[in-house]
Amino acid sequence: MMTGAEALLRTAAGHGARVCFANPGTTEMPLVAALDQVPGIRAVLGLQENVCTGAADGYARIAGRAALTLLHLGPGLANGLANLHNARRAHTPVLNVVGEHASWHRPYDAPLTSDIAALAGTVGSVHGVTDRAAIAKVTRAALQDAHARPGVATMIVPADFQGEAADEEPSDGEAPLAAARRQAALERVEAAAAALRRERERAVLLLGGNGLSRAAQRAAGRIAASTGARLYSETFPFRVERGGGLPSIDRLAYFPEAAAAALADATVVVAAGAAGPVAYFGYQGVPSVLAPPGTVRQLAGPRDDAEYALQALADLVAGPGSPAAPGEPGAPGDAPPPDTPLSGPVVGTALAAWLPEQAIVSVEGGTCGYPFYAASACGPPHTVLTNTGGAIGQGLPCALGAAIAAPGRPVIALQSDGGGLYTAQALWTMGRERCDIVVLIAANHAYGVLRTELARHGQSPAGSQATRLTSLDDPRLDWVALAGGYGVAARRAATVRQLERAFRQAIRDGGPHLIEMAIG
Amino acid sequence: MMTGAEALLRTAAGHGARVCFANPGTTEMPLVAALDQVPGIRAVLGLQENVCTGAADGYARIAGRAALTLLHLGPGLANGLANLHNARRAHTPVLNVVGEHASWHRPYDAPLTSDIAALAGTVGSVHGVTDRAAIAKVTRAALQDAHARPGVATMIVPADFQGEAADEEPSDGEAPLAAARRQAALERVEAAAAALRRERERAVLLLGGNGLSRAAQRAAGRIAASTGARLYSETFPFRVERGGGLPSIDRLAYFPEAAAAALADATVVVAAGAAGPVAYFGYQGVPSVLAPPGTVRQLAGPRDDAEYALQALADLVAGPGSPAAPGEPGAPGDAPPPDTPLSGPVVGTALAAWLPEQAIVSVEGGTCGYPFYAASACGPPHTVLTNTGGAIGQGLPCALGAAIAAPGRPVIALQSDGGGLYTAQALWTMGRERCDIVVLIAANHAYGVLRTELARHGQSPAGSQATRLTSLDDPRLDWVALAGGYGVAARRAATVRQLERAFRQAIRDGGPHLIEMAIG
Repeated sequence: MMTGAEALLRTAAGHGARVCFANPGTTEMPLVAALDQVPGIRAVLGLQENVCTGAADGYARIAGRAALTLLHLGPGLANGLANLHNARRAHTPVLNVVGEHASWHRPYDAPLTSDIAALAGTVGSVHGVTDRAAIAKVTRAALQDAHARPGVATMIVPADFQGEAADEEPSDGEAPLAAARRQAALERVEAAAAALRRERERAVLLLGGNGLSRAAQRAAGRIAASTGARLYSETFPFRVERGGGLPSIDRLAYFPEAAAAALADATVVVAAGAAGPVAYFGYQGVPSVLAPPGTVRQLAGPRDDAEYALQALADLVAGPGSPAAPGEPGAPGDAPPPDTPLSGPVVGTALAAWLPEQAIVSVEGGTCGYPFYAASACGPPHTVLTNTGGAIGQGLPCALGAAIAAPGRPVIALQSDGGGLYTAQALWTMGRERCDIVVLIAANHAYGVLRTELARHGQSPAGSQATRLTSLDDPRLDWVALAGGYGVAARRAATVRQLERAFRQAIRDGGPHLIEMAIG
Repeated sequence: MMTGAEALLRTAAGHGARVCFANPGTTEMPLVAALDQVPGIRAVLGLQENVCTGAADGYARIAGRAALTLLHLGPGLANGLANLHNARRAHTPVLNVVGEHASWHRPYDAPLTSDIAALAGTVGSVHGVTDRAAIAKVTRAALQDAHARPGVATMIVPADFQGEAADEEPSDGEAPLAAARRQAALERVEAAAAALRRERERAVLLLGGNGLSRAAQRAAGRIAASTGARLYSETFPFRVERGGGLPSIDRLAYFPEAAAAALADATVVVAAGAAGPVAYFGYQGVPSVLAPPGTVRQLAGPRDDAEYALQALADLVAGPGSPAAPGEPGAPGDAPPPDTPLSGPVVGTALAAWLPEQAIVSVEGGTCGYPFYAASACGPPHTVLTNTGGAIGQGLPCALGAAIAAPGRPVIALQSDGGGLYTAQALWTMGRERCDIVVLIAANHAYGVLRTELARHGQSPAGSQATRLTSLDDPRLDWVALAGGYGVAARRAATVRQLERAFRQAIRDGGPHLIEMAIG
């Protein structure tokens, strides 16, 4: 006899699911038991659900296919919604499996009853299992939907349907699914080519989505060399390949004044995998739309195959096999001298200088993140993951998921302290799964970005409630102790020398390590 | 000039709001600035939003009126939804103030845009500020709604309306609001009296809501003495007074078989402030409804004034001034001998023996929670707060909020380790606010309740994925280190002697302390 839970897992495994980031409860017990009956799906426990969902996002960014999450009813899903919001903005495939009360118990409004579908609907599609016979079919549909859009799909699975005998065969052994992206229509490519040829140096090519793959950036480089168009990347890409001779492509600035200035003299902005650029927040007197009116042309949307479109465009404007603009040659700059105290720019330069080949860098927070991004363009080939949706607490879980997806690659979490505190529980799972992750905490003991925003409102006096609401300094957070609490080895660094020693040893030793960087 | 943000805070303060549990972001900056302009509202920072919402719940349970939360857009609200679910089940007044993009920026679907109203609607009422002129009016309506139901109300406040000049006067200086409860109709009281007189020892009086106040329990004691009815409390009360000579009232058991057995021979179950009892989860072959069919009579619903109804009922069946059944006399039992290793029952007995007068005990998790509850009935007067909605991670934030509401009372968080890890960030705020809280962590390094549930599914072999999903032991969580990371003094205890020394010193010293109890 096969239970509904086994049918669900077998169907998911048959379509390529390999990992389940789980924080289950009583209503998911048949699924927990089935994880030992169905081969091929590795269960990874998170101590809080936003770790699970953020890890599923990070996993999908690297693997190109969905992991499962296993979450406990509405409150479990609610705890993971913030990182699902980020996954929604990243257009990554994720399949949430959320338990529900037994179908016959649901009407009694027991304490844990809530509107799971309403919660799930805010981040993606909802697939309820309303019939014992449908569990494999719904699994298949939800997984296909997650990969076809790509995006977040949520299955709601009553406990009785999990535990009872399944009526149907799971669709075992089908081809694994991968994130599917629509090909751009040829007319769009031709229209973009005409605009770029006409506007030349006044044109901007804005890359996003899978338009930041290695192949896509090479194509963009050929387009730029042939037409004179300037290249920009969206501000927060879900995954961008960097270094290894790729062209150095700046991100559009975070603050709208600077971003608008960069685009001010553009007569056409061809967006490839990026949405038309808008301000992150609205500021009085600053326009929400960053490009000059009427200049944006969509070559490929964020869910489309921008890589393919860019290659087609490059062949059209530059001819097949045309040379790219020269990429960034040589090596990144040297790290600052050993006695230099750490700061955002110092850490950015140093990390770029020490970066291992094929590293994956999960960046959350601007203090070190922006300087690193700028400095690493000339480095060895590596991948950068950023916070796509602005829901804080994404960096550590995303690094965790990336490490599970790519066990051979070193992963670095370059993490601001304020954001790291939302999901510090991710450290424990890094320890349990022996992930090769170096967590670099930029410890300035403040919500730096909010200090900047407060300054826009007129600086508040020290000791005021406003200042205290942006301070992490009373009491002072001790990340070395926190990491120890979660079973992860940790050290402190205040200078380039201390940081280099700790970083190189962490890479050499493997496993998870945390370094608290005192950022002046 | 008064800004919209100032009008909001002045209106809230005028209606009795004194505390704002805050985790703000860019769209809440005018409100952050206004916290220094408007007197009377204390801002308390949480490092993650579920700390803020759980603290607001705990605050309201003790203060009887709403605190504000200040949350950042949809993801900030999402992070706090789990404890709002608990507040919804506790029927506590909470006013969430959630920032939104500037009204003119909202349509551009910037990264942090999401459906805030859909999220808020799952836990209570939603009050959008859609007009700059309406901000004080909406604040008043939302606060009144939170107290009238009582329950969770959410205001969604676009950033531009916060920052611009308010068009209207705040309603300053009005009477503070308090949680309002409907009085039961006289017919209900009379019908209950008739049923109790008829059924006598076959009757059960099930208390919940404010039917567990000191006055309500005394009235229930008079009813029991006069009619022979048995008394039970709902399983997870939002606030129950205990000790100091009150009758010892058992809670209905958590597992439905035991709860149904306790009610099996009842011919009438009069519910006063409690809902008709249903199973927490559905189990195959076990009924969802715990009382025999047709026996439940609602004297007062969970939102009604059960205290008033019980007093009226007592006067009717027992006469005004009639004696209660004798309460629990004398002192609780002695603590077990000093060398006894700690276990759930040992900790429960010991804590009951050492309990300070007027303590507030926030209980999350059953390992020590059930034994303590049973042992403390004969102790000094104290208040117990429990997890009403089953969303884990409620105990520490609830203790925090209670301590802010009652600075003169010692607060104890009796907390299972698994649940504590969801919102361990609450420790930091306890440190910042110098709260007199002793956190007792029951460290069995497992999700104990899930082990029990797994056993119902047939025990899984050690090392299986199922067993690992219920284990917190690899790596081993170190709560003393975690507390140190958050700036809270901490010790370990493995015996009654060590626990007593640490506990008494923590109470004596004041401020927050954590004791990791090794539970065998």
